Amino acid sequence: MSLVETNPPNRALFSFEVTARQGRARTGLFRTPHGDLLTPVFAPVGTSATVKAVTPAQLQELGATLILANTYHLYLRPGDETISQMGGLHPFMQWPNPILTDSGGYQVFSMADSRRIDEDGVTFKSHIDGSIHRLTPEKAITIQENLAADIIMAFDECAPPYDRTTNERAVERTHRWAERCIKVKSRSDQALFGIAQGGIFHDLREESARFISELGFPGNAIGGLSVGETKEEMHTILSELDEILPEDKPRYLMGVGSPEDLVNGVLRGVDMFDCVLPTRLARHHAAITRNGRINLVNAIHQNDPQPIDESCSCYTCIHFSRAYLRHLIIAKEMLAATLLSIHNLHTLLQLMQDMRQSLVAGTFEAFAAQFFAAQEHIQ
Amino acid sequence: MSLVETNPPNRALFSFEVTARQGRARTGLFRTPHGDLLTPVFAPVGTSATVKAVTPAQLQELGATLILANTYHLYLRPGDETISQMGGLHPFMQWPNPILTDSGGYQVFSMADSRRIDEDGVTFKSHIDGSIHRLTPEKAITIQENLAADIIMAFDECAPPYDRTTNERAVERTHRWAERCIKVKSRSDQALFGIAQGGIFHDLREESARFISELGFPGNAIGGLSVGETKEEMHTILSELDEILPEDKPRYLMGVGSPEDLVNGVLRGVDMFDCVLPTRLARHHAAITRNGRINLVNAIHQNDPQPIDESCSCYTCIHFSRAYLRHLIIAKEMLAATLLSIHNLHTLLQLMQDMRQSLVAGTFEAFAAQFFAAQEHIQ
Repeated sequence: MSLVETNPPNRALFSFEVTARQGRARTGLFRTPHGDLLTPVFAPVGTSATVKAVTPAQLQELGATLILANTYHLYLRPGDETISQMGGLHPFMQWPNPILTDSGGYQVFSMADSRRIDEDGVTFKSHIDGSIHRLTPEKAITIQENLAADIIMAFDECAPPYDRTTNERAVERTHRWAERCIKVKSRSDQALFGIAQGGIFHDLREESARFISELGFPGNAIGGLSVGETKEEMHTILSELDEILPEDKPRYLMGVGSPEDLVNGVLRGVDMFDCVLPTRLARHHAAITRNGRINLVNAIHQNDPQPIDESCSCYTCIHFSRAYLRHLIIAKEMLAATLLSIHNLHTLLQLMQDMRQSLVAGTFEAFAAQFFAAQEHIQ
Repeated sequence: MSLVETNPPNRALFSFEVTARQGRARTGLFRTPHGDLLTPVFAPVGTSATVKAVTPAQLQELGATLILANTYHLYLRPGDETISQMGGLHPFMQWPNPILTDSGGYQVFSMADSRRIDEDGVTFKSHIDGSIHRLTPEKAITIQENLAADIIMAFDECAPPYDRTTNERAVERTHRWAERCIKVKSRSDQALFGIAQGGIFHDLREESARFISELGFPGNAIGGLSVGETKEEMHTILSELDEILPEDKPRYLMGVGSPEDLVNGVLRGVDMFDCVLPTRLARHHAAITRNGRINLVNAIHQNDPQPIDESCSCYTCIHFSRAYLRHLIIAKEMLAATLLSIHNLHTLLQLMQDMRQSLVAGTFEAFAAQFFAAQEHIQ
């Protein structure tokens, strides 16, 4: 017997524990092979194995823990086999903390004109060079095993939220595909999450959440939200799913990441989020604050010595004026995207930390009430 | 009398001291209001008040001390008066160490089709919006006083290196303009450097170096090199100027920054350099090493787990493979320019540090011989 045991038999590679609750909101600890995630957690998106415009060192300084990478993009470029040869995503992109990959489904289904779906999978055209490719549940798992993230996602069908017929079909297919994903998964150092679908239809959502929950995934995701439905519809569905999804497993709301959506999600029992919003807005010159967005290209900022947000403690706000940021934007300097990404990511990561702390302290409901009051004050 | 004296009367704001020599090469200490520069020093270029693709924090981590910003670009955008309102370049761009601004002359003279020169100054068209502007020696100093760098440059005329008639005229005019710059300069916390011109013509170079030296500037620059002449011509001129330019003042070779040019410059008594090369090459996918350049877009790097340079200790080489860097380039990710800029800047800044250390240790000639031997080995 070896004297060094990297994985003692009594310690599971993955575990989830809720450590405090208030109402339906909860905070907890999700253990993964690349470290512990304090939940609720927001994952910045690194589509092509880089969170755009920031280095991994800057991301770590921001306190990011989980990041998401996109299977569709990495499969096409540089290819999952190249990444596998480099030892997987962690060494490839030099992210030492947990990584989650999506299944590629969302990207493929969002390209309505360049894909054809059948019971076995999806045939699609690459957005890069028009070449033809095929994704199936088995292929999506193979690719994700090559990418070697800690958390991987079942291959699902995402339907337009108001289309009943398509959602009925998509839910059934998503369930059959989920079973195929479980069957083919082979790595023990990855946690496979299921995804519940169903558009805005309560019965379909309930059916899907029950089916996916019963498959016993170590985590469950809510797909097909934040894709065109109203905020009220999203909130209602989240509240309903909170009753069904297992309490003892993390719940992951995919593609959601505005400050108000994060607070609303946590209020309704969500533990994990990801979104391109902070980095995408940064490249479009917008700064996120808890009280709204500021577009720094506006001439009003030309001689403004203030930071984006007086109360913000990020590198950007500690150092740089709105005047400087506007100058960088007008001069088309890359540093603009970097500094705004740092600020926007900090805003969301700090919000998550504040929510976790208020949950531990038992003051989350007051925190949320204050948060929404400040928002109304601005609008 | 105040108990706190920020500028004790006996301590000049600027001073230069040579601390070791070997052959014509020297190392020294140049004191400025924003800190001490160990020479020979290489200044990364921050054209528009940002060294492209890196943050000031990354630049400091790289050990950069002096950086250069361009008067022409900043006068046009965001305007020197905006920067003055923000307290000058140091707070505006958040660079705590010394800054040097050029005079704007080089940029204006390089736009042969959109400027008209007369004895009093130059009228030129903005490359941004075609608007008409005028630079004179007086205006160049006013702008540079607004920008508030530590080291500012006299407004000079830079002529094509092989054109005798134009160089004769340019040298005379550069001398008259240098006198006008001295006359109008008003800030005591800035050091104004003179610039010697003369193309490849030895008599003009000698005349210009003598004239500029006699004006008593606290530092002297060599302009109009690295603009089309051969390496041999540049080296000959540097050797000749070394005899003329005052020993006790820093000598600044403008616009030079390949590793071999830096070593050749130091060998011939130069103390200061600046160049866009490391950051510009980075944006064109090329890595600088002491033994040559590597273009990372090449397919040969696709699955290469090696760093750019095994012997390099920069953030990029410690962390990232050539395969990852190539992927970032192909995927047009901003991180490519950031990581390559970090590597290229490190390569040049480390080279300067090694030269300074070998000068202190008395081993510089051996260092230079080894450096050139390694280069021949590669080619």
